[in-house]
Amino acid sequence: MLLKAKILGLEAEKPVVILNKDDAAEIDVRPLDRVEMRLKGRKGVAIVNVATRFIKSGEIGLLSEIADHMRAKAGDRMDVLPSMPPESLIHIREKLAGKPLKDEHIRKIVEDTVHRRLSEIEMTAFVAALYNHGMTSREVAALSRAMASTGKTLDLGKKKIYDKHSVGGVPGDETSMVLVPIVAAAGLTIPKTSSRAITSPAGTADRFECLAPVDLDLEEIKHVVKKTNGCLVWGGAVDLAPADDLFIKIEYPLSIDPLLLPSVMSKKKAVGAKYLVIDIPTGEEAKVKTTKDAETLAERFIELGKMLRINTVGASTYGEQPIGFAIGPALEAREALSTLMYRKGPPDLVDKVAHLAGILLDFKLGGGGKKASLRLLRNGKAYKKLKDIILAQGGDPNIKPGDLPIGSKHVEVKSNVNGCVGWINNSAVVEIARAAGTPKDKGAGILLHKKMGDKVKKGQTLFEIYAEKSYKLERALRLARELKILGIGKTFQMLIKKIPPRIEHPKYFILER
Amino acid sequence: MLLKAKILGLEAEKPVVILNKDDAAEIDVRPLDRVEMRLKGRKGVAIVNVATRFIKSGEIGLLSEIADHMRAKAGDRMDVLPSMPPESLIHIREKLAGKPLKDEHIRKIVEDTVHRRLSEIEMTAFVAALYNHGMTSREVAALSRAMASTGKTLDLGKKKIYDKHSVGGVPGDETSMVLVPIVAAAGLTIPKTSSRAITSPAGTADRFECLAPVDLDLEEIKHVVKKTNGCLVWGGAVDLAPADDLFIKIEYPLSIDPLLLPSVMSKKKAVGAKYLVIDIPTGEEAKVKTTKDAETLAERFIELGKMLRINTVGASTYGEQPIGFAIGPALEAREALSTLMYRKGPPDLVDKVAHLAGILLDFKLGGGGKKASLRLLRNGKAYKKLKDIILAQGGDPNIKPGDLPIGSKHVEVKSNVNGCVGWINNSAVVEIARAAGTPKDKGAGILLHKKMGDKVKKGQTLFEIYAEKSYKLERALRLARELKILGIGKTFQMLIKKIPPRIEHPKYFILER
Repeated sequence: MLLKAKILGLEAEKPVVILNKDDAAEIDVRPLDRVEMRLKGRKGVAIVNVATRFIKSGEIGLLSEIADHMRAKAGDRMDVLPSMPPESLIHIREKLAGKPLKDEHIRKIVEDTVHRRLSEIEMTAFVAALYNHGMTSREVAALSRAMASTGKTLDLGKKKIYDKHSVGGVPGDETSMVLVPIVAAAGLTIPKTSSRAITSPAGTADRFECLAPVDLDLEEIKHVVKKTNGCLVWGGAVDLAPADDLFIKIEYPLSIDPLLLPSVMSKKKAVGAKYLVIDIPTGEEAKVKTTKDAETLAERFIELGKMLRINTVGASTYGEQPIGFAIGPALEAREALSTLMYRKGPPDLVDKVAHLAGILLDFKLGGGGKKASLRLLRNGKAYKKLKDIILAQGGDPNIKPGDLPIGSKHVEVKSNVNGCVGWINNSAVVEIARAAGTPKDKGAGILLHKKMGDKVKKGQTLFEIYAEKSYKLERALRLARELKILGIGKTFQMLIKKIPPRIEHPKYFILER
Repeated sequence: MLLKAKILGLEAEKPVVILNKDDAAEIDVRPLDRVEMRLKGRKGVAIVNVATRFIKSGEIGLLSEIADHMRAKAGDRMDVLPSMPPESLIHIREKLAGKPLKDEHIRKIVEDTVHRRLSEIEMTAFVAALYNHGMTSREVAALSRAMASTGKTLDLGKKKIYDKHSVGGVPGDETSMVLVPIVAAAGLTIPKTSSRAITSPAGTADRFECLAPVDLDLEEIKHVVKKTNGCLVWGGAVDLAPADDLFIKIEYPLSIDPLLLPSVMSKKKAVGAKYLVIDIPTGEEAKVKTTKDAETLAERFIELGKMLRINTVGASTYGEQPIGFAIGPALEAREALSTLMYRKGPPDLVDKVAHLAGILLDFKLGGGGKKASLRLLRNGKAYKKLKDIILAQGGDPNIKPGDLPIGSKHVEVKSNVNGCVGWINNSAVVEIARAAGTPKDKGAGILLHKKMGDKVKKGQTLFEIYAEKSYKLERALRLARELKILGIGKTFQMLIKKIPPRIEHPKYFILER
């Protein structure tokens, strides 16, 4: 059926066209069926939406992506025919019915995902099927490989590539910013790609962006890594395992995360990692609650690593409270920069970095990695390496912590009792930091003055809130009065945990990888 | 945040608004999060889509449904704030994780579905969860009740309402059109609502529309039923159990049908049915393959019926070939009309109608229902009743079979061998009839000349294809040469079934209820 193109300005990352109801019935397609379009030798397939008034009979509405793909101009007459759904839909249905998938079928599903051939309903069915039926090790490996190979890959022409990843869940965790310069200073190659915050106050990419540009392309990354052994860049700019972002769009509103393992490992595979440490923050206040759960998760990473030829070690780390004192992109960047520059920092941050960097160094040294890491921090070689990386990525290597702008609106929250900090509510920290403007407002966030075990006197500052805008500061402060960040008892109470009334935010601690 | 309304002509049955990327970040919402809008004392909640160019910072794009709901005009300044997802999403996640749902939580999900508060992703997660985890009887009953009570209901002020339903799967099944006049002629009240075809060549509503209007509203239905005891109307016009259509939109592209039981029973509940027969066409060529499967399904309907106080009987009927000879709305309407008018018709159609009508009459008579049904057909009372119903619904009661227009394009397909028909491929019948233009082109379809067991001579007509348009006739004929409708052996072969190469159409025989 010949239809006249009507170009809709609307952007949509979906291959959708809009037909008039009568035309759709004429060619026997229903909403969410597919049509094939032909125009001047070009072909395309799109998913059908149906309108009664907005698109008249004889017209076809094209969203900008499809219009670009077909190089269609308003008024072009396109031939439109019914088209079968992609083969991968059959395999999605098989998985939904509980059948394990073959490697090549997983590959088909990932290809059709990346080429936007699947509707949201079909992709949701796939994600829900993975969530319900789980995946065999073989399936996870095939999925990781398919996700890696359908995107770009970083080829540094080297065999020994090191990497680090955190499954997330604890706020204020600027470990990677300190770890990468140490590992690179030790002579190991660590091309670290990181994400931006989704539900947390800051991702590593958001933090490091306060020091240098992070949206480098693959050639630029190669250049930086060849020069310095390391980098700290935003993974989203390089199209590594692009299926991941598309799956996350489905997982996010459902707060489920069945693709955690392939999501992480496909990206490591794409940068050619051979040695990997997985940080699993563990604790009541973290995403992973117990060391037993952490072990189970680590074992799955290790097994998957074997299948993908990535030597993997898991590390269950203390996750009951934020790392260091700062929460928010610029505040954390200040803390990390100062730790490297002044060769010392918050003890928990330094210890965590030294342990994780140590695991990576141990791959090469066979032992003593933690000590070596601390040495590189303390002798200033790590700071020197940081400056090299900042310079190579296009930043100012002489930047000082005080140069990083933080929010000019600012309030101190003080204690109205004497006592001792018994617990910290991580999810309240996250919510208040987000209310203050993070991650968008880089200078927003929280600076803790007290952490677990600290003695507190009435009138002493417990924490500060920073914001770039007054209404956000007020919003954060209102929330801080409602949600308790710190639990203060008369002494360090032996009651392990009070159960404060929390506002349900089932979204937090999900999906930050 | 105050944003200027930009009204997009686009229709969408979804409460979606489009924000500029920067504004979304500013109020800390991501795609598929929710916002609350306020305008002149009116409030609304919508799901966020994000654009970078199409919607400028400071603007909010409103699709027509939301614009109407908010009574927003272009340029109106609306206050836009982040909003939590509806509570039902928590329960969808619980079901996705395998937890059984409480009655009130099921009700919440259905309410939010009907009020379009859930995104496609969230609804798909719910449907996939039901498919994967199944439902307890209690859940099915609660879902049926919630689906019935969130729509309109038909109150005829009577206690004894009779109804019939087919789970579908066999083409050319005009049973309801013949059954309803018989049952109504017996003095029973049978307000039959039917669907239009989704994947089949004709639904009962499509067929009966050839004789009389079927899109009656509730008051009109009451009027017709009070006058005649029966009706044959399109359920879609009366908003009974409206959640069903919304669930079907999700099930259709996935070819899954976990809501079959609540879908059927909610509609029966909504019309106040107390006595019900469920037709389950059974056979290799039908949706339900074995009598054992049919029994299991029937038992679930019966159990659910008890919980909903609907006396239910299941009937497993022969489904290996089309019922009667006609396939297509007008061709089937002719066959049904002629059966009632001339008091006899295809033996399989008459026998099926008599059995099913008999089951309903037996509820009242305690026995002898089948005989009584045949009597009402043969003494002309059923035809008289049909004329009353046609008249009451606004049609011409004196219409004759030959008055119903059928496709003027027409071809006969002849046998090139002598032999005996050993099998009929139902899904090929469906595909060819759809290719010929059904259900949209009411005059299109297939007229079988031979059925199973019939002797065939070389050169004899096997079937005719009718179409309203030449290109559709050619398309259907091409398909008829590719797919074999009839399998002809030398004698009635004892080989039960050849396995002909079929074109995979996993969509057919799903969702027609």
